[in-house]
Amino acid sequence: MDNEEIEQVIEKIRELIDNKKINELHSFLEDINSQDLPEILDEFNEDDTIMIFRLLAKEKAAEVFVELDSDEQEKLISYLTDSEIKNVMNEIYMDDAVDLIEEMPANVVKRILANTKPGNRKIINELLKYPDSTAGSLMTTEFIDFKENYTVEYAFDIIKQKGLRKETVYNCYVLSVDRKLLGVIDIKQLLVASPEMSVKDIMSTNVISVSTLEDQEEVAKVFDKYDFIALPVVDNENRLVGIITIDDAIDVIKEETLEDFEKMAAVVPNDNTYFKTSVLKHARNRIVWLVILMFSAIITGSIIESFESAISTLPLLVSFIPLIMGTGGNCGSQTSTLIIRSMAMDELSTKDWLKALWKEIRVAVLVGITLALIQFGLIMLQYHDVKIATVVALSLVCTVIAAKAIGCLLPIGAKKIHLDPAIMAAPLLTTVVDAVSVSMFFVFATSIIGL
Amino acid sequence: MDNEEIEQVIEKIRELIDNKKINELHSFLEDINSQDLPEILDEFNEDDTIMIFRLLAKEKAAEVFVELDSDEQEKLISYLTDSEIKNVMNEIYMDDAVDLIEEMPANVVKRILANTKPGNRKIINELLKYPDSTAGSLMTTEFIDFKENYTVEYAFDIIKQKGLRKETVYNCYVLSVDRKLLGVIDIKQLLVASPEMSVKDIMSTNVISVSTLEDQEEVAKVFDKYDFIALPVVDNENRLVGIITIDDAIDVIKEETLEDFEKMAAVVPNDNTYFKTSVLKHARNRIVWLVILMFSAIITGSIIESFESAISTLPLLVSFIPLIMGTGGNCGSQTSTLIIRSMAMDELSTKDWLKALWKEIRVAVLVGITLALIQFGLIMLQYHDVKIATVVALSLVCTVIAAKAIGCLLPIGAKKIHLDPAIMAAPLLTTVVDAVSVSMFFVFATSIIGL
Repeated sequence: MDNEEIEQVIEKIRELIDNKKINELHSFLEDINSQDLPEILDEFNEDDTIMIFRLLAKEKAAEVFVELDSDEQEKLISYLTDSEIKNVMNEIYMDDAVDLIEEMPANVVKRILANTKPGNRKIINELLKYPDSTAGSLMTTEFIDFKENYTVEYAFDIIKQKGLRKETVYNCYVLSVDRKLLGVIDIKQLLVASPEMSVKDIMSTNVISVSTLEDQEEVAKVFDKYDFIALPVVDNENRLVGIITIDDAIDVIKEETLEDFEKMAAVVPNDNTYFKTSVLKHARNRIVWLVILMFSAIITGSIIESFESAISTLPLLVSFIPLIMGTGGNCGSQTSTLIIRSMAMDELSTKDWLKALWKEIRVAVLVGITLALIQFGLIMLQYHDVKIATVVALSLVCTVIAAKAIGCLLPIGAKKIHLDPAIMAAPLLTTVVDAVSVSMFFVFATSIIGL
Repeated sequence: MDNEEIEQVIEKIRELIDNKKINELHSFLEDINSQDLPEILDEFNEDDTIMIFRLLAKEKAAEVFVELDSDEQEKLISYLTDSEIKNVMNEIYMDDAVDLIEEMPANVVKRILANTKPGNRKIINELLKYPDSTAGSLMTTEFIDFKENYTVEYAFDIIKQKGLRKETVYNCYVLSVDRKLLGVIDIKQLLVASPEMSVKDIMSTNVISVSTLEDQEEVAKVFDKYDFIALPVVDNENRLVGIITIDDAIDVIKEETLEDFEKMAAVVPNDNTYFKTSVLKHARNRIVWLVILMFSAIITGSIIESFESAISTLPLLVSFIPLIMGTGGNCGSQTSTLIIRSMAMDELSTKDWLKALWKEIRVAVLVGITLALIQFGLIMLQYHDVKIATVVALSLVCTVIAAKAIGCLLPIGAKKIHLDPAIMAAPLLTTVVDAVSVSMFFVFATSIIGL
């Protein structure tokens, strides 16, 4: 639904509530997707929210509950009766239950666990043990498994009995008696097989799995490479303990993609959300790079200081420093961003460095000359001084070329020696490009103007 | 497979080729994932590559072919016989066929189309008409559809006949006689239904679809929000024309996430790959923002120029400009990156602006005071001048607070008035933060040192 449709739905619900048409509201809610409801509920006061929530079918109520912000979940729980909490906990996936419990304060957790079936409570406690951002913390324990001697017909019976949740039906797993992972069967393979065949004969044994302690970055990579719908997670004896489904993997893929983004902006990446991170932690995550970059600025500053006599003679020079440094920095970060992006999308590998450098240099010449011509014109118009105009124009061309070359080679070089390209891009790039561009500017100034 | 495993596989294949153990190689290749093979083939010369490719089973050969770079595809095609090309074209998905044809030169396209079944050729030609980055260009025409009067039992027969490709089996679609989309059935719903039921009774009618000309950004959003496995694509009369599967959507989600990244680095986003984009296009995509940012630097430059007399009196001041401007820029981009990231991950909405601002100001005070203390100490050590140290320290605190406040409010404000937060973050942020920080520095300098 787009914003307009959502507003119409909100209005309609408001109207039904105002006219106390509860039955009509009940059936109206049936047709709204559970993913759209949190946004809709946001617009109602607490009393109305809880009433709407109570009108939802059990399964949908649980789906909506999972989609809410943790503040709203906490508020809602305080209004729900024990049996309503029980319903929610019976319906939600185990991985979502764990996420919920991790976000709630202790007293709420106690109440949630008291209203969870003992079997599920045990699973939740097991899952809570996996460290953040590992495969174990992402997986759900709900999957369909067959023993190797099952027939296809019997396999379908198992699915009918257990397969109530669609995320877990697309791939089924064949396990040995001691629960070791032997093979995987796509539902399509089951559908086209004849009933009397053994699952052993149709499974593919070439199974890619991750271990429970594998980092989520690796999980994202596997999903990205193999186009999986679900990824099995095994313990260190290759026993199947859970699966990660594609919908949870997408969030990880997005997070990992955004991590590069943060690193390039000189922030230490953080798996927690913005508001959940404390002020102190935020400050710590940022100050490291700010201090490093401060020393980088001191280097540039001392280069400028060494040209003090030139500045005293012609203070006007100083007003071009932001232009030279800014253009250098922008050109460098344009290039390094494109290079890092292309490496992330597997469009560029380290062995393409020369090809990329050659492309960047040609781009830089075009860009540099354009900027230099504009700036030359502007300076001639304002100051009528061909020497200053030449110094600035020449510095711009050289700065753009140097910045693009450095912005191209640094991240590729970093990847080649297995360092993080995104981290290298921010501080080292700034330091080198700033120092090089300011030096060139003053060298041209002193030699051409003769200061 | 990780790099080490891939190297072992390469060695093993090499050994089998050297010893001419072709049958053994054939069965060895069966156990290798088609997603790993392109990387492996990369290490072999052309003769070996074509031999390995020929040893692959038909379906796998097509899967591997699709994963290759377009240069390698072109090379491979030149070696393949017409009947081999026919095999590949019979096995690959229609969306992949279209991608292939879009990348190949005209003479190769001709040869490919000559070896494609007339029915598929027609579909390919239809698909080629959709503009880049639309839902139509992403979709495949292979899906399973039922008429509304089918029973569950008959539906399974249809799947058995047609459902040879797994990506398209998880969701099936119910169409009216004129092919209008009536409902969607998840395979799970079919599996748990009794055979005599009608598909009409188990389908969900609340179908979310996109139209063929919808932008891929919207497609990414829908997948992200609703956790779909496949998304139906309809024409303007609500007739089902194709589906987009999650594996193709992931690439789009990644691309869209990275787009923000590019915008913040002052590059005009581009749907083409790095090397496929011409030097001229690259230059054009970058020069727009560089020129805008150049004028921003000119503003900062003229602020500096207005303090020319202070600079002549105390040229040392100039050496602190990189520090003040750099710290301001870095603090601003740290904050705006985190804010944009949180908005992209739906963790922060525009109505949270005050909460975010308050958090940023507290972070800024902590960060600003830390940086100011370090810098105060360094200047006292080097120049023993308490006035200069005070000016720089005070400027740093104010710059950090201003930069973080602006870096927080600009992207939120942009989103509020439906502008692109990422675009606003780069140029406007730089302009405002640079101007504010340099002004503050010189105002403090002239008043405290009394220049």
